[in-house]
Amino acid sequence: MLVTMKNGARTEQVMRVRDCAERSGLRTKEIHSAAGSLVIGLVGDDSLCPMGLEALEGVESVEKEKHPFKLASRQYQNHDTIVRVGDEVSIGGQKIVVIAGPCGIESEDQLLDAAIAAKDAGAKILRAGLFKPRTSPYGFQGIGLAGLGILEKVRDETGMLLETEVLHTDQVKLVEPFVDMIRIGMRNMQNFDLLRAAGRSEKPVILKRGCSATLTEFLLAAEYILNEGNPNVVLCERGIRTFMTETRNTLDLNSVPLLKSMTHLPVIVDPSHGTGVYSLVTPMSRAAIAAGADGLLVEMHPHSETALSDKAQQLTPADFRTLMAQVSAVAGAVGRSM
Amino acid sequence: MLVTMKNGARTEQVMRVRDCAERSGLRTKEIHSAAGSLVIGLVGDDSLCPMGLEALEGVESVEKEKHPFKLASRQYQNHDTIVRVGDEVSIGGQKIVVIAGPCGIESEDQLLDAAIAAKDAGAKILRAGLFKPRTSPYGFQGIGLAGLGILEKVRDETGMLLETEVLHTDQVKLVEPFVDMIRIGMRNMQNFDLLRAAGRSEKPVILKRGCSATLTEFLLAAEYILNEGNPNVVLCERGIRTFMTETRNTLDLNSVPLLKSMTHLPVIVDPSHGTGVYSLVTPMSRAAIAAGADGLLVEMHPHSETALSDKAQQLTPADFRTLMAQVSAVAGAVGRSM
Amino acid sequence: MLVTMKNGARTEQVMRVRDCAERSGLRTKEIHSAAGSLVIGLVGDDSLCPMGLEALEGVESVEKEKHPFKLASRQYQNHDTIVRVGDEVSIGGQKIVVIAGPCGIESEDQLLDAAIAAKDAGAKILRAGLFKPRTSPYGFQGIGLAGLGILEKVRDETGMLLETEVLHTDQVKLVEPFVDMIRIGMRNMQNFDLLRAAGRSEKPVILKRGCSATLTEFLLAAEYILNEGNPNVVLCERGIRTFMTETRNTLDLNSVPLLKSMTHLPVIVDPSHGTGVYSLVTPMSRAAIAAGADGLLVEMHPHSETALSDKAQQLTPADFRTLMAQVSAVAGAVGRSM
Amino acid sequence: MLVTMKNGARTEQVMRVRDCAERSGLRTKEIHSAAGSLVIGLVGDDSLCPMGLEALEGVESVEKEKHPFKLASRQYQNHDTIVRVGDEVSIGGQKIVVIAGPCGIESEDQLLDAAIAAKDAGAKILRAGLFKPRTSPYGFQGIGLAGLGILEKVRDETGMLLETEVLHTDQVKLVEPFVDMIRIGMRNMQNFDLLRAAGRSEKPVILKRGCSATLTEFLLAAEYILNEGNPNVVLCERGIRTFMTETRNTLDLNSVPLLKSMTHLPVIVDPSHGTGVYSLVTPMSRAAIAAGADGLLVEMHPHSETALSDKAQQLTPADFRTLMAQVSAVAGAVGRSM
Repeated sequence: MLVTMKNGARTEQVMRVRDCAERSGLRTKEIHSAAGSLVIGLVGDDSLCPMGLEALEGVESVEKEKHPFKLASRQYQNHDTIVRVGDEVSIGGQKIVVIAGPCGIESEDQLLDAAIAAKDAGAKILRAGLFKPRTSPYGFQGIGLAGLGILEKVRDETGMLLETEVLHTDQVKLVEPFVDMIRIGMRNMQNFDLLRAAGRSEKPVILKRGCSATLTEFLLAAEYILNEGNPNVVLCERGIRTFMTETRNTLDLNSVPLLKSMTHLPVIVDPSHGTGVYSLVTPMSRAAIAAGADGLLVEMHPHSETALSDKAQQLTPADFRTLMAQVSAVAGAVGRSM
Repeated sequence: MLVTMKNGARTEQVMRVRDCAERSGLRTKEIHSAAGSLVIGLVGDDSLCPMGLEALEGVESVEKEKHPFKLASRQYQNHDTIVRVGDEVSIGGQKIVVIAGPCGIESEDQLLDAAIAAKDAGAKILRAGLFKPRTSPYGFQGIGLAGLGILEKVRDETGMLLETEVLHTDQVKLVEPFVDMIRIGMRNMQNFDLLRAAGRSEKPVILKRGCSATLTEFLLAAEYILNEGNPNVVLCERGIRTFMTETRNTLDLNSVPLLKSMTHLPVIVDPSHGTGVYSLVTPMSRAAIAAGADGLLVEMHPHSETALSDKAQQLTPADFRTLMAQVSAVAGAVGRSM
Repeated sequence: MLVTMKNGARTEQVMRVRDCAERSGLRTKEIHSAAGSLVIGLVGDDSLCPMGLEALEGVESVEKEKHPFKLASRQYQNHDTIVRVGDEVSIGGQKIVVIAGPCGIESEDQLLDAAIAAKDAGAKILRAGLFKPRTSPYGFQGIGLAGLGILEKVRDETGMLLETEVLHTDQVKLVEPFVDMIRIGMRNMQNFDLLRAAGRSEKPVILKRGCSATLTEFLLAAEYILNEGNPNVVLCERGIRTFMTETRNTLDLNSVPLLKSMTHLPVIVDPSHGTGVYSLVTPMSRAAIAAGADGLLVEMHPHSETALSDKAQQLTPADFRTLMAQVSAVAGAVGRSM
Repeated sequence: MLVTMKNGARTEQVMRVRDCAERSGLRTKEIHSAAGSLVIGLVGDDSLCPMGLEALEGVESVEKEKHPFKLASRQYQNHDTIVRVGDEVSIGGQKIVVIAGPCGIESEDQLLDAAIAAKDAGAKILRAGLFKPRTSPYGFQGIGLAGLGILEKVRDETGMLLETEVLHTDQVKLVEPFVDMIRIGMRNMQNFDLLRAAGRSEKPVILKRGCSATLTEFLLAAEYILNEGNPNVVLCERGIRTFMTETRNTLDLNSVPLLKSMTHLPVIVDPSHGTGVYSLVTPMSRAAIAAGADGLLVEMHPHSETALSDKAQQLTPADFRTLMAQVSAVAGAVGRSM
């Protein structure tokens, strides 16, 4: 619930509202509305909201939020969240940020080559997957913890920022010293224990949209992370499952401007999984930026013909450079830069 | 089937292949392949294809087409089709073409105001719907033939090119003298008699994608029109039906680059029906052009607050001018102009 | 709108309400509610509903219908519609009715064999398709009007009732003398001119659900037919398009009990198109009847290995007899008979 | 891969094939084919399959499996798996098994009342959810481990078998002493660590289908469990996400006969989540059994008007008894009993 205080409400009146809510088991958040008045957001189960708040002194009105999520909504924070990654990269501001790298780590050479190619083309963060969630138990499951040393080496040699996917709560703490950002994949968008663990991490989190999730469900998943205290969530559109068979998924770019209106969190797009078709990655990257996305997550493999997974959608370094040039032109046309 | 002739095949050898196919009830189309050799496309039911074509003199090989459509495919025509509308407008070339206007004609004043606003902002063709297919028999069904006089008046006064939807075979001939382009809506994408009637028209045809059509089905619908002799088909992506409820449809921009690779026909995008959400029309228009679309079909109403249908998605003239300015910038970034 | 009259309202008061509505362009329907009071349904565009009806003498209340369709709803008619086909068959009553026959007519012998096999197994109506709507212009388009003589012959020799699909308004009158029932296919569920033509026919109509239609859209399509004066509409669930690729369509049996609660019209199920998989036709037929369907529309071909279309889903006569025996047992378990 | 041995192949020839496969990192499973010959299934990553197996003495042929899953397929085990729960209940045999109970445990009284009502009506296993996966972090998350004592009490007092959902790997061992069956919910169908943990449990596992999972993906998820050594997996269809909004999900009964043809594992149906509509639970339960399901998982609440979650779909005890009577009649019609 949102409790709007009267203009000139006194501090003790505000305190009484907060006390009252907190005694009912809710947390409170002070919000400064555009109109200048103080609003107190009551975070938690709405059914716990105490009766009679409207009648307290200094209270102007009490109303329900527009959406079931709270901390993620623009009613709780109107200005855009800017997520810092490392010391120099920010996602959600004027600059478009591109994250690129192979589907999964296969060897030190492969990741090093990928890092150099990504950096040369202007990517700021390296996709560096240790664990691969695979539909079949017999598929390549990723290099696993054996890859931690590779991460260290690549970070030292190239200075690239790194991100990696976590599949289990235990992995969050394990990978934290080695990466700058953690990622929760689409199959785990509603793995609530994992979301809570990411919410207790100090690292920023990329949360990928589930392949049949509505935007409200997506933002409620983000709310699980925010609600544990981690404000640094980057949403990633990666395609939804529809009747279409000519693409692996249907990249849903409508979600980009719609999410930007519903939430203050940054939104990036993964055109590689979102289409699953090599030739669509570059045009859909241009379209994503034109639609208002804050960045891209692109699969690029230094030797894609021998990739152990997702062969059909990983760009070559040369095609990735073309993508970056074209995306940069579109970014300029919509008032952004790389 | 595609019959590739040997280099240096003689005219009588080519004639024999054509004769043989035509006696079996197939039509033939001569195609000059990129490699320089002559290819004869056999148009019709593949099961009628005569045995033994490979053995004819001068024949190099006989192979099945990659797709079930033929005339629409890049194997039958590799260069882009450019559809002329009126004397001065071409869809499918370097220039982006925007079609705009109200959801349906409501009055002479309304259409005239819309035409002027559309023209001023740079639209080249006016959307001018006489007949409205409505989900309910009790909804406003369009002004009908009573609107033909309005079309004449608006064309005379503004010089705008006009397009209108046809719902029944009989309407094709009726509207032809009054408009420059006819449109087949998404509900009729597989109304095969209507497609055939449009295929016998001299006017170019906008064919909208059915809301649950694959691209192969979409191109087979276009093939019905091409197969009757009308080569001027413009494909229009207008959103598909998915599990998403936060938008009216899911505008599927993946279809734009994918269609461009499958067919030589121009592809435009309708972001108004494709999203059904006012605030998404402009960002998705930018994205459509960035993805490679050849044009847009946008609902704009001079007095949208009083519109008789689709109130929620028709732009005001002011917002339409903003759209045109932003789309123009993106067009420039991808090497196109308005 | 639904106008409920007070108990004991006088005839002239009722007349005044009807007059008032009819002068506004609405039609009226007298409904006797379960509670015993007289309700006047106002059929047409709700926005035409005259102001002040509540204030007329004898009027108890005025309220909006629960659904956008009217004549099709249980608010307008609570008892089940029973559709008579020929002299002896009724759809929608206690008895389950099975319609069976080949996907399309191929020859006199084929249809005659099919009719005999269908009749022997207990089917009451023969599926006898003259016109085949085909995704490709090069597919077999049906035998067309040349098949009318075959219909006559088969009817004379076997006494079977016949049904056939119509694709164009002109075909309705042409086929009427030859068949007992006409069918509108899923691609034409929103071909509104065709619906209106069927609404002016004297034959009962099978209306198939569009493959991406909601039930409200389905019933609004039925409303187009009812609104022209033909009350004999049988709804047919035939599968929806989903992400599933292991079946051709997803037969949506939820629609059966849901439709039965929304409308008084009979509901049958087409498990052949609904699944597209031979081995699923019989189990899904059992399930349809268990869910409450009033009948089935099943593809059965006397020589299915040589069928010109839909080879994969047409039952052999032997398998059709098994289906009938199993369906009969399930019908008994839910209080129905064959 | 499936290695078929020649008739009369000697033991040492079989041993050599197994050795060869196991040295390549594959496991082997001896299968006795219907034709009487010995087949050796090679379980693991097909790309590891050693070259030259065909050339080994005693080998008749080597072929790829029809599906990407192995242990779950009918090629690896043709006879139906019968899953024992407790001492007296079997799922997958002639008898239909019904699992019923509230959406979640709310109190000892609630679960005890539910157990008694379920048992009286003929249910064999009690649904007893400790942990509730909730879309919102602010929703009721279940009673948690505090409910373990309730489970003990209810088991002691009623003798009912119990099943409960696990959300995290750590919960598997914790709940094992208290329940007879564990359940993995639809959001966790591809939580691969959780599947592996269930695969190491001694309890039978209900695996619910993800709401956008194909059947191949579903069976690959089951394969994760089987591959860890737990053969007792019961598949549960619970509705898929489609464009339909008039039901919460689209219960996909096509999956029942299709799964039964692809796998030897038992298949049950959850009509409560599968439809989300109270009035559809009973008809869709009848339809599920008619389609060939081996059991049902039904939400029933002793006081459903005060339920803390899923109020709209939990049956009253009285309606549940009606369901049981109707399902029993349908079971009889398809040769099953309760």
